[in-house]
Amino acid sequence: MQYDLIANSGKARFGKITTTRAEIPTPVFIPVGTRGTVKTLSNEELRAFGARIILGNTYHLYLRPGHKLIEKLGGLHKFSGWKGSFLTDSGGYQLFSLKALNKIDDKGVDFQSHIDGSRHRFTPADVIDIQISMGADIIMPLDVCTPYPVDEKTSEKDMKRTIGWFGLSNSRFIEKGGHEKGQDLLPIVQGATYIDQRMYCLEELLKFDAPGIAIGGLSVGEPKEDRQRILENILPHFPDDKLRYLMGVGTPEDILEAVEMGIDMFDCVIPTRNARNGTLFTRHGKMIIKAARYAEDQRPVDEECPCTACRGYSRAFIRHLLSVGEILGLRLASVHNVYFYLNLMERIREAIEQERYPEFKTKCMADLARGCEEI
Amino acid sequence: MQYDLIANSGKARFGKITTTRAEIPTPVFIPVGTRGTVKTLSNEELRAFGARIILGNTYHLYLRPGHKLIEKLGGLHKFSGWKGSFLTDSGGYQLFSLKALNKIDDKGVDFQSHIDGSRHRFTPADVIDIQISMGADIIMPLDVCTPYPVDEKTSEKDMKRTIGWFGLSNSRFIEKGGHEKGQDLLPIVQGATYIDQRMYCLEELLKFDAPGIAIGGLSVGEPKEDRQRILENILPHFPDDKLRYLMGVGTPEDILEAVEMGIDMFDCVIPTRNARNGTLFTRHGKMIIKAARYAEDQRPVDEECPCTACRGYSRAFIRHLLSVGEILGLRLASVHNVYFYLNLMERIREAIEQERYPEFKTKCMADLARGCEEI
Repeated sequence: MQYDLIANSGKARFGKITTTRAEIPTPVFIPVGTRGTVKTLSNEELRAFGARIILGNTYHLYLRPGHKLIEKLGGLHKFSGWKGSFLTDSGGYQLFSLKALNKIDDKGVDFQSHIDGSRHRFTPADVIDIQISMGADIIMPLDVCTPYPVDEKTSEKDMKRTIGWFGLSNSRFIEKGGHEKGQDLLPIVQGATYIDQRMYCLEELLKFDAPGIAIGGLSVGEPKEDRQRILENILPHFPDDKLRYLMGVGTPEDILEAVEMGIDMFDCVIPTRNARNGTLFTRHGKMIIKAARYAEDQRPVDEECPCTACRGYSRAFIRHLLSVGEILGLRLASVHNVYFYLNLMERIREAIEQERYPEFKTKCMADLARGCEEI
Repeated sequence: MQYDLIANSGKARFGKITTTRAEIPTPVFIPVGTRGTVKTLSNEELRAFGARIILGNTYHLYLRPGHKLIEKLGGLHKFSGWKGSFLTDSGGYQLFSLKALNKIDDKGVDFQSHIDGSRHRFTPADVIDIQISMGADIIMPLDVCTPYPVDEKTSEKDMKRTIGWFGLSNSRFIEKGGHEKGQDLLPIVQGATYIDQRMYCLEELLKFDAPGIAIGGLSVGEPKEDRQRILENILPHFPDDKLRYLMGVGTPEDILEAVEMGIDMFDCVIPTRNARNGTLFTRHGKMIIKAARYAEDQRPVDEECPCTACRGYSRAFIRHLLSVGEILGLRLASVHNVYFYLNLMERIREAIEQERYPEFKTKCMADLARGCEEI
């Protein structure tokens, strides 16, 4: 993987990731396909919306169908039919959100399957092995996902363990020839809301000279101001030539703000999960499509949106489909939201390339704040 | 609606239905879209597979979102975005399959909603009003859906009530100007497995001179031989110039056999319902895709099938998707099965047009009997 910075607009960055399978213009949003598939969508739809990379989850794929099976069938790309790139998350976040089931020590984490309660253990090396065997293009290491709120001491311990684990992960990655297979491993900066810890973690991880750096442990419940404060303080210390990946973020507003601070890559379940709950994104903010006011509304979700949901179906019909539990409702809502996110990223990139990102962002934020009654 | 018989091959008929919205070559299979949408599929997909008509259900649409709403929004076509024709089933079958909840008399049927238990009453005229207001192209009357097995006396009473109800339905249809609106009403022949009752019912219903005749109350649990015996005995008495609609049938084998006897139109939940249960249709019979033997099978469901599921995804991946409950699995299985059915009908029509239907059917049946281990 290679990252090239092409243009700036303020601190916002327009660039390009090149993997063996795809050229990915940045800033990029990665749709989440936990079990090897972005919920409700086909590969063809994702491709048509401009997606070049999707995210799979190590924890979920390890449990079902199992990484050995995926390896045997030629890897995640061949298995799923997805022709773009795959980033695989380490599963750390999943393990820690099933906290009660885990024992953690310096060597790794014990956990029970959320499916059948069976007992398993992941070491940092295991997680690398699994991802290498599945053939992911971008691999994430096992990290300690510190919850919010957390005291300074616990956070420091977790952060230092994350650094130690990255050392183990990186050694295993080199040993197993990940680079030669066209794969890359990105370290994850932890340190909760403590700037000095974040800085220490960043400095330690930069020593490994990976092509990009991820920021984890944000959007876990902390106030938005804390997140902004951390990003503002640490991002100036990120080298220009490395990709910056803000994990698990976020809303359209979150993305617009993080891009302004210099983030290049995002992933988040929001567009797909919200779709299934009936929350649709529009340029004028969220539309709760199941609200009674849309029962007789024959307009598309957004008249200016060219997605297949907006071209062929009305608010009233999508509301009906979701109300009675028809799968087409989940599909149309997901199509619209994922299209919205990917299109937002395209507009963001264009604005940066044309050196007008600050104005673009201000207008976008104002539009989003208007409320969807206006469209 | 107009039906034109174009060619015969034995008793099999190739023809054409013309509605105000579509030209529909026959024999035709109507995908079932109970709540205004064929489960998991988009209008665009159905159109691309060659569907020109889908089926909506009066009972379900009356309850949710309500026919008044659909009428207010310009009818079922405008509401759903489906640009082909709609046939709406009367809901009789649904009412009678919720038997315990109903009281039936000569004037109509009392029932409770399966959703909230609320009490409702349908008369034959109500059911016509609802379907006219929704703007269906082909309208089905309320009939008494006699269960199987049934004694001769009960069947006769039900059948005569069905005839009486059709009289009421037809009067209401004329009164409301259904014809002027481009709609048509088809009578339904009942009479269980009693040939004399079926014949009596047919003769009475032919007096109304509708452009087509439906056959109801089959595929409700009776032995296949009984169904064939009835069809063989009554079909020779159907006028050549009227469309023949066998309701709720069936498997590919059932369809091949009924076409041979002269049936023109079918509807059935089998392709979509079986898809969601993981049963896929192939030219060599059913494939239970969740079986362990497909876990590592990298071939498409059917190598010769050009559907989007077979072009982009393996048996192993579809099995994985269905095993973990991913919606894309339901979609791909439905895409494949509906494509299979519509493609089967296309091949059937071609064979009739080329006057080689008996050979075609014999070969198809032999292929289906082979078992999908062979592909």
